[in-house]
Amino acid sequence: MVRDEWFELSEQISRDELMRKRIGGVGGILSTLIHIVDVENSWIRGIQGKPDIQLQFDKYNSIQQIRNLSNSLRTEIRPFLETWKNDFEHDIVTIPWTEGLYTKGEILRHVIAHEIHHIGQLSVWVRDIGLQPVSANYIGRGLL
Amino acid sequence: MVRDEWFELSEQISRDELMRKRIGGVGGILSTLIHIVDVENSWIRGIQGKPDIQLQFDKYNSIQQIRNLSNSLRTEIRPFLETWKNDFEHDIVTIPWTEGLYTKGEILRHVIAHEIHHIGQLSVWVRDIGLQPVSANYIGRGLL
Repeated sequence: MVRDEWFELSEQISRDELMRKRIGGVGGILSTLIHIVDVENSWIRGIQGKPDIQLQFDKYNSIQQIRNLSNSLRTEIRPFLETWKNDFEHDIVTIPWTEGLYTKGEILRHVIAHEIHHIGQLSVWVRDIGLQPVSANYIGRGLL
Repeated sequence: MVRDEWFELSEQISRDELMRKRIGGVGGILSTLIHIVDVENSWIRGIQGKPDIQLQFDKYNSIQQIRNLSNSLRTEIRPFLETWKNDFEHDIVTIPWTEGLYTKGEILRHVIAHEIHHIGQLSVWVRDIGLQPVSANYIGRGLL
């Protein structure tokens, strides 16, 4: 929900500002949005034992293209998350692109924290260009 | 854990930079750290039906003072969180300073997302002054 609101807001941002190199994070608004989508997809595929997909970042040059990518990956991610059960929490998995053992619950929390963290960075950058960021509130979104 | 690492890092930051008014969020490094501690405390007291405590922000002018505040409030917050049970999740509570009904689980997630979001903002600001931010990774902290 928050990501979609960010896509909406970002469509008001000029191409120059979207691509501008900024200090911190992965270095810019557009690249941060791609990075969020990419990292979520990689880890959620990893949890499921699916091979990683290397996205070609330079193929995504507009908000619309990133939004399409996000929507398209979501058609696989959402059905998987809808199968989530409490006993997945401590299931141990290995991940193709990194060493070590992880639990599925740990990975899920990592993905959530990762997106929120980067959105915090976006919120500073869009204020810098005079826009009001998307609300970061978890509460008040009717998620009960 | 992440907050304590931020306190540690912030002790290297000059008073001027800590207090400098910045664009976005609650407007600065020191004020963001107080705000994180304050919001967590208010909501976690709210879940427990305890009255809100209005912190006097102008009393906290150094990282050491905020760290002491955080440690002191943690002595009440941690024992409460250690009593958390799955069936708290959907318990409905009212909160003294705001209207509406909330579930305890929703509030807990709100507090977590709130801190991560603001720390994302801090990560941009400290890069601006040439420091390497604390890792935002959930994974790799030995939290299994």
